[in-house]
Amino acid sequence: MKIPYKIYLNEEEMPKQYYNVRADMKKKPAPLLNPGTLQPMTAAELEQVFCKELVQQELDDTTPYIDIPAEILSFYKMYRPSPLVRAYELEKKLGTPAHIYYKFEGNNTSGSHKLNSAIAQAYYAKKQGLKGLTTETGAGQWGTALSMACAYLDIPLHVFMVKCSYEQKPFRREVMRTYGAQVTPSPSATTEVGKRILANDPDCTGSLGCAISEAVECAVTNEGYRYVLGSVLNQVLLHQSVIGLETKTAMDKYGIKPDIIIGCAGGGSNLGGLISPFMGAQLRGEAQYQFIAVEPASCPSFTRGKYAYDFCDTGMVCPLAKMYTLGSSFIPSANHAGGLRYHGMSPTLSELYDQGLMEARAVEQTSVFEAAEYFAKIEGILPAPESSHAIRVALDEAIKCRETGEQKTILFGLTGTGYFDMIAYQRYNDGEMRDYIPTDEDIAASLSKLPKV
Amino acid sequence: MKIPYKIYLNEEEMPKQYYNVRADMKKKPAPLLNPGTLQPMTAAELEQVFCKELVQQELDDTTPYIDIPAEILSFYKMYRPSPLVRAYELEKKLGTPAHIYYKFEGNNTSGSHKLNSAIAQAYYAKKQGLKGLTTETGAGQWGTALSMACAYLDIPLHVFMVKCSYEQKPFRREVMRTYGAQVTPSPSATTEVGKRILANDPDCTGSLGCAISEAVECAVTNEGYRYVLGSVLNQVLLHQSVIGLETKTAMDKYGIKPDIIIGCAGGGSNLGGLISPFMGAQLRGEAQYQFIAVEPASCPSFTRGKYAYDFCDTGMVCPLAKMYTLGSSFIPSANHAGGLRYHGMSPTLSELYDQGLMEARAVEQTSVFEAAEYFAKIEGILPAPESSHAIRVALDEAIKCRETGEQKTILFGLTGTGYFDMIAYQRYNDGEMRDYIPTDEDIAASLSKLPKV
Repeated sequence: MKIPYKIYLNEEEMPKQYYNVRADMKKKPAPLLNPGTLQPMTAAELEQVFCKELVQQELDDTTPYIDIPAEILSFYKMYRPSPLVRAYELEKKLGTPAHIYYKFEGNNTSGSHKLNSAIAQAYYAKKQGLKGLTTETGAGQWGTALSMACAYLDIPLHVFMVKCSYEQKPFRREVMRTYGAQVTPSPSATTEVGKRILANDPDCTGSLGCAISEAVECAVTNEGYRYVLGSVLNQVLLHQSVIGLETKTAMDKYGIKPDIIIGCAGGGSNLGGLISPFMGAQLRGEAQYQFIAVEPASCPSFTRGKYAYDFCDTGMVCPLAKMYTLGSSFIPSANHAGGLRYHGMSPTLSELYDQGLMEARAVEQTSVFEAAEYFAKIEGILPAPESSHAIRVALDEAIKCRETGEQKTILFGLTGTGYFDMIAYQRYNDGEMRDYIPTDEDIAASLSKLPKV
Repeated sequence: MKIPYKIYLNEEEMPKQYYNVRADMKKKPAPLLNPGTLQPMTAAELEQVFCKELVQQELDDTTPYIDIPAEILSFYKMYRPSPLVRAYELEKKLGTPAHIYYKFEGNNTSGSHKLNSAIAQAYYAKKQGLKGLTTETGAGQWGTALSMACAYLDIPLHVFMVKCSYEQKPFRREVMRTYGAQVTPSPSATTEVGKRILANDPDCTGSLGCAISEAVECAVTNEGYRYVLGSVLNQVLLHQSVIGLETKTAMDKYGIKPDIIIGCAGGGSNLGGLISPFMGAQLRGEAQYQFIAVEPASCPSFTRGKYAYDFCDTGMVCPLAKMYTLGSSFIPSANHAGGLRYHGMSPTLSELYDQGLMEARAVEQTSVFEAAEYFAKIEGILPAPESSHAIRVALDEAIKCRETGEQKTILFGLTGTGYFDMIAYQRYNDGEMRDYIPTDEDIAASLSKLPKV
């Protein structure tokens, strides 16, 4: 059967349920802990910060399929299904016998897969009758996505945006404003935790960890507000499973079985969403795949971090999560472009990685932009720097196939577009981009501050 | 039959031939004239500026269907078919009985429909063995599109970018550079015509007309180079007919017949492409439609211009075209956001308009941005300012239907996304956007300089 350049599912084929990979894991991810008592967080405790129904999803590690509400399905139909693309032109140019596929999540105004979870979280907040939401954003993809979802459902939103991104990406801020969100650069003087961080380091360029602390404080100190998060959490991976479900349905329809599945990993939302249904099949003994997480060498939580309980945020106001972490005080170099700046990693992916079910690779940003530009010229899509981490490894694997003659099927997640990352591209075009790799001492220093659990 | 939110044709259903609406016109568009002799331009004369095969397409007003070469079809498969979207959410929010559809051309890195003609023109240049191409770009969509096409086919490209856009849209410039193009702000001191314009007005913020003159001069003074244009010409409308052909196939498949077809009009590439197959059906007596061209009140060639022979460029180095024009010396206010800044209009569309086969409306930019923001919040897509002209009139027509109770089917062209137009959105968000309407004296002054033909 001839595989088209792009496979679009029709509406009937689109997933009607989220898939919860934890249900198929024998050893479950470790629970979130209350930082005061060091006991597992109860639903009641979590509901002070998060929406009620999202807390249920967060804690549920036994139900494999969870219905997607009709309102969310309607919203999905506006920008989904996303295409599964056969990269014929790339294969030709590389001269590789490998078959390359990518699931492209960038064809929406937020520019990434983040919208999949944003609309779900906004929907449950609306259903609960909340007055408003707070969140953080790094590169701005999540903030944009949540602004769109909140505008659609008419919910006020306050976004804390990592300061270096806020300055590098003024246009992202304008998109959020166009969708009606209030945007504050983080660390800011609008929260107690922000003031503390600025008192220690007035020039702090921010981190996701800082911004999370501020957004959480803002939520718990404003009546009727809750905090929502775009990555890391189990609930987010659950919503993002639509990526993998669509991909698997499309591949099954054409009788394609990927040998290697590659995704970039910051907090794990895209990677977790893409691999979940495939990992589920593997956990149930139905198939075998090679899973590769790709992270920046400047923020290498899988490859150089520790699997331990840590704070999710710099301000240490959030629950503790057991995850691969560089320590919550770790802040990647400001010269690191784009997202994937988080010190930790999804607890679910961390557990899968710890069980040896997944590999991880760290790549340097100049080689990532080289891959991005190569890909853009051949496949036409200017990729997000985040997504380009996955492109880098997909190219590496396709080139290996050229050398060995193996006809492997490679699937990667192209999470988004780089249209708001042109300052980083400009630095690359001008030959001004450098690599930055933290020293062992840098990492040891932040790991030494891990909480004692 | 239930109409899905988005209709995607499969590869077999995609058009394999361009449609040439001139073949079905009894009275043809007037020929281009040699500005020296005032005689119709011959193929030999045109080939000094344009590629050979494109000249044939320019002059051919009798062949209805022209095969799309296989290489172009392959490229199209990377980003086409574009979705035909049923705006269910918009209809619901408006409370209108009208059915609203839009053909969305923004899901590619150039952000607009311009890529459809860019790849065709680059392909014919490559086939002819040319050394390189020159072009102009206003808002930057065409320049980006041509950069992508030239990168794919490995052809050097020099882009003259209207200076006010070059300054307002530095990121567009970086996208072009990422795709390997050389970008010069226009008017520039790199050409004779640019020097003349700057001598008259050193603060000139540029216009498409100026940039065309510079690009043409650069092409004819560089051995093996040719000039390509993203709008106005018959060949461009021919390539853009893929928009209308896909739309008509998708609508026919579901038994939908549009009553009103709306497109924004600058030089006419999108509008001409969208309406061509429908206009053809009407010219052949097979159906009736209401066609509406929407132009900015700040550059109103259809509604306030004159149908006359005029220069296509400010420097008066190009052939004369018979078209609706404000005069080639007309330069819209620099506070006008985005594209649709051209003083003239496609000769084909001008002839159709003159024959009463099409209506035109001029809209002011604050009402255009109001429509854009409304649309973005409901349909999720942040539209280009250009496309938002069509949205404005589509909303107006849908609201009329609400008042009259008529269940009309409205189709409009959503030509692109506004991701590189955030400065204009910011002005709108900050309440700093103003309308600008040229006075009768402004227009009379530039029309008084029309050539005597």
